Amino acid sequence: LEAGDAPALAQLLEGMHPADIADLLEQLDPEDRRELLRMWGSELEGEVLSELDEGLREEVIAALSPEALGEAVRELETDDVVDLVEDLEEEQREEILAALPADDRAAVEQSLAYPEGTAGRLMQREFVSVPEHWTVGDAIDYLRAAEELPEDFYHVILVDPRMRPTGYVPLGRILANRRDVPLKDLRDESFRTIHVLQDVEDVAYVFNHYHLISAPVVDDDGRLTGVVTIDDAMAVLDEEAEEDILRLAGVGDESLSDRISEIAKARFVWLFVNLLTAILASLVIDYFSEAIEAAVALAVLMPIMASMGGNAGTQSMTVAVRALATRDLTMSNAWRVIQREVAVGALNGAAFGLIMAVVAGVWFGMPMLPVVVASAMVLTLVSAALGGILIPLALDRLGVDPALASGPFVTTVTDLVSFGAFLGLASWILL
Amino acid sequence: LEAGDAPALAQLLEGMHPADIADLLEQLDPEDRRELLRMWGSELEGEVLSELDEGLREEVIAALSPEALGEAVRELETDDVVDLVEDLEEEQREEILAALPADDRAAVEQSLAYPEGTAGRLMQREFVSVPEHWTVGDAIDYLRAAEELPEDFYHVILVDPRMRPTGYVPLGRILANRRDVPLKDLRDESFRTIHVLQDVEDVAYVFNHYHLISAPVVDDDGRLTGVVTIDDAMAVLDEEAEEDILRLAGVGDESLSDRISEIAKARFVWLFVNLLTAILASLVIDYFSEAIEAAVALAVLMPIMASMGGNAGTQSMTVAVRALATRDLTMSNAWRVIQREVAVGALNGAAFGLIMAVVAGVWFGMPMLPVVVASAMVLTLVSAALGGILIPLALDRLGVDPALASGPFVTTVTDLVSFGAFLGLASWILL
Repeated sequence: LEAGDAPALAQLLEGMHPADIADLLEQLDPEDRRELLRMWGSELEGEVLSELDEGLREEVIAALSPEALGEAVRELETDDVVDLVEDLEEEQREEILAALPADDRAAVEQSLAYPEGTAGRLMQREFVSVPEHWTVGDAIDYLRAAEELPEDFYHVILVDPRMRPTGYVPLGRILANRRDVPLKDLRDESFRTIHVLQDVEDVAYVFNHYHLISAPVVDDDGRLTGVVTIDDAMAVLDEEAEEDILRLAGVGDESLSDRISEIAKARFVWLFVNLLTAILASLVIDYFSEAIEAAVALAVLMPIMASMGGNAGTQSMTVAVRALATRDLTMSNAWRVIQREVAVGALNGAAFGLIMAVVAGVWFGMPMLPVVVASAMVLTLVSAALGGILIPLALDRLGVDPALASGPFVTTVTDLVSFGAFLGLASWILL
Repeated sequence: LEAGDAPALAQLLEGMHPADIADLLEQLDPEDRRELLRMWGSELEGEVLSELDEGLREEVIAALSPEALGEAVRELETDDVVDLVEDLEEEQREEILAALPADDRAAVEQSLAYPEGTAGRLMQREFVSVPEHWTVGDAIDYLRAAEELPEDFYHVILVDPRMRPTGYVPLGRILANRRDVPLKDLRDESFRTIHVLQDVEDVAYVFNHYHLISAPVVDDDGRLTGVVTIDDAMAVLDEEAEEDILRLAGVGDESLSDRISEIAKARFVWLFVNLLTAILASLVIDYFSEAIEAAVALAVLMPIMASMGGNAGTQSMTVAVRALATRDLTMSNAWRVIQREVAVGALNGAAFGLIMAVVAGVWFGMPMLPVVVASAMVLTLVSAALGGILIPLALDRLGVDPALASGPFVTTVTDLVSFGAFLGLASWILL
């Protein structure tokens, strides 16, 4: 296929959805990708650029001729252009903005003036608004006469004379009613506006929570400035969950097309933090080295304690981090959730304490070892539960993303407690 | 507030969105919840039931009188009723179905006949379809005359005489065109149908990937049987990401309103699997107990190796699990991704090997210890990378959810390699 047959290639790509072409570009290795862009880049649609992984956009944009790029970009809606250029370097951004018609360019620049991560960046400028006193007939006539309508719109927004939205009417209701019915009577009760500076994560939450399809965006004076649609909200929700998963595992915003050196560097940071907490835990072990010299069984068993503590802590922490993100965990039920976690930790601590007491007794046959193992297990799992819930809550209160920072703190707590409790009890009771 | 003032309570809840009432019910403690339902249950809307956590639905439904329940359920669309009853016990399900009008009941039962997790369960039966040869005017007249329309619809679906969908027209285009324009000319190119037995995760992927708003569902004969809308697809996408996060952490489908014993039991299973892998690792340590007796520094340092291996493995594994879920990782680029992971593991292995060699040298001053530490670190991080990518890939091939099962396998690999390599090299070189 990549054997230089340009017409065959063009024909093949012609019928493909832009999202699939973007996937294809992501999956090709860098050489094939350059080759494909060289042969076919001039026909690349703007939507393919929107669909591409952020890491690859720069590379692909650089590979396109200025004419091909300009043509591709002019097809896009303003919110897609904003999304496309916001992470680009100054030079490429300028190149793209210069290719736009003057009014689109102004709209994009206005959106870019809002801070990153706000509704102002997410919204599209294309929307349909009509005076609130119009009837169904007025709206139909207006829409039929309109020269350019947004590609997708689901509501007609009603505005007062000062362009402040006062409600919206789903298109289905306009179609289902007679021409003389006032639009006011068809307003949908789901209507709610979004402030232009609202955080995109809040916007996504509101869409998901109230099952919105689109929502008008207003500025400080309450005037209509744009519309956020559900597909954009869905993308934010998706990214947010993705981000949480990767952050919990200590991986940054990496994607499969990133360079090896970048990935190694990003993961290094997390592993380095982990190294520091591990060394801290080793200092505890070192402190009890006499006990280990006296009974090597302790060295054999202690990684089990640490592993159980780490896993139990991760369970509590993950539940807490997600419940905070979905707003199921709030200050009003935090106390109840903390009690619940401690109860779960105590229950499982008792269960595993019993199991491990039997295992240790059979394995090493030292008289008091089972007592040490069981008590240390209870202490470890209870403090893992406490750390797993309190640390995300505290970070959230401090305004730090709990998904990003909880891990190392929780690990530190579970390591210190598991090694400390086990070896401490052992030197006290056994020696 | 909960001091028995029923009218004040009713007034307060009156103005609230069903999703917010459901949240309130979830956050109350069980006693207050029962009290609230006793005082106000008769006015509870069906949508509140839909919005409730699955764990709580049974409890709330049991607390409602049959009349209140019947009234609540009759307000819902068929897909919401299906979602509501599919996880209920036989008895409660019967009670709800009995409260529905005959035709709705038949539609719900038909949907329930499809296997769980398929488009048939997700779709709503309410849709708007018209003959493909109609014009804009025909469609408007039909919609105006229709007695009952779906609450939300975004397209008019075109069907052939055998009820097979051949395209769809966005409502905005119907509104924007003259009465004599044939609907055929306004068809949207995003049109694609979904088979009634298609997996809901695939459906969500298709919606997200192709930016669909709604899609017709067809049976084996290609006949239109329902419609899936974006809000349902969004909910599936959200649940799926949530599920992955929780599964990766070894937590099942738990929610904050579950009972303590249930949570403890679910988490116990995962911790038990982890205990077995930890004991396996301890057997390796036990095998080298002579080395530890000879140099207690080994016992102090070995948890560091295990911790670094575990974390690096989790990083690779999480990236692989998510890339599989989002279909960025496929058999066609797997080889490239594996090479990449190994390269990242080798780079970070070298970096941390160097750091730890210095730390171990300064700390314990044993001549060959730094060499042992550095070599073991490289081996550990490379095998963590390999395990982190190969295990999810293998599980995916075997049809097992990689999010659910990868963790214990990856931990086993990293534990065995880190303890084995470190202690093995130590007894070979040092003793």
